[in-house]
Amino acid sequence: MELTHIEHLGIAVKSLDEAIPYYEQMLGLKCYSIEEVADQKVKTAFFKIGQTKIELLESTDPEGTIAKFIEKRGEGIHHIAFATPSVKDSLEELSAKGVRLIDKEPRRGAEGLNIAFLHPKSTQGVLTEICEDPNKK
Amino acid sequence: MELTHIEHLGIAVKSLDEAIPYYEQMLGLKCYSIEEVADQKVKTAFFKIGQTKIELLESTDPEGTIAKFIEKRGEGIHHIAFATPSVKDSLEELSAKGVRLIDKEPRRGAEGLNIAFLHPKSTQGVLTEICEDPNKK
Repeated sequence: MELTHIEHLGIAVKSLDEAIPYYEQMLGLKCYSIEEVADQKVKTAFFKIGQTKIELLESTDPEGTIAKFIEKRGEGIHHIAFATPSVKDSLEELSAKGVRLIDKEPRRGAEGLNIAFLHPKSTQGVLTEICEDPNKK
Repeated sequence: MELTHIEHLGIAVKSLDEAIPYYEQMLGLKCYSIEEVADQKVKTAFFKIGQTKIELLESTDPEGTIAKFIEKRGEGIHHIAFATPSVKDSLEELSAKGVRLIDKEPRRGAEGLNIAFLHPKSTQGVLTEICEDPNKK
């Protein structure tokens, strides 16, 4: 499997309005996009640093996965997303090697990427996403 | 402040012997170094993906910060480390802006980097490190 870089880090926050100023004013990064992903029940804010994006995640629903994550563990890093040339091929390879998958097929995520999540039971406790940019083909 | 990229991600694991095969065999990354950092009470294993390193952290002491982290939250992403041209200058700027610091001065971390940790109370719940490579100057 050929993972090329860390595409983004997902960070769970209670409030984008509180978190964005920290990343902009304290760390000097620039929020270039805010997007709601309805089926994941989140509002996202994106920053770029080097090859990697930081994706802040605010829940839009108290029953959503991000709300539950914060309730259980507090704000913090929620998942890591690796870039791969083909999510479909990577899923096949991972499945064949015995990695449990949350998504058996690629689905559409924020920023139009094709994405899939692996199960943290198979990934040493780290919620792991793989993603590809269909516009780069 | 000029943060250039994510230098590494620190991931807390119970056992390097169990975690390294996952990163190597499942994700196809290569462990290029194992190092004990005595004053942080950890044994570390390093992988590189794009600009970023993954630093697995196994506690060498049941009272160490990594052991406590796993006890409280389970295995998972422990901290994010941003690369900066000067840790000293960045600390001065962050302190002037009101960010709480764990390390008021740079200290020596794994791989010979100069590092400092910011306090998660000031960083939206994300334990954050800044680091510079003195060999790149």
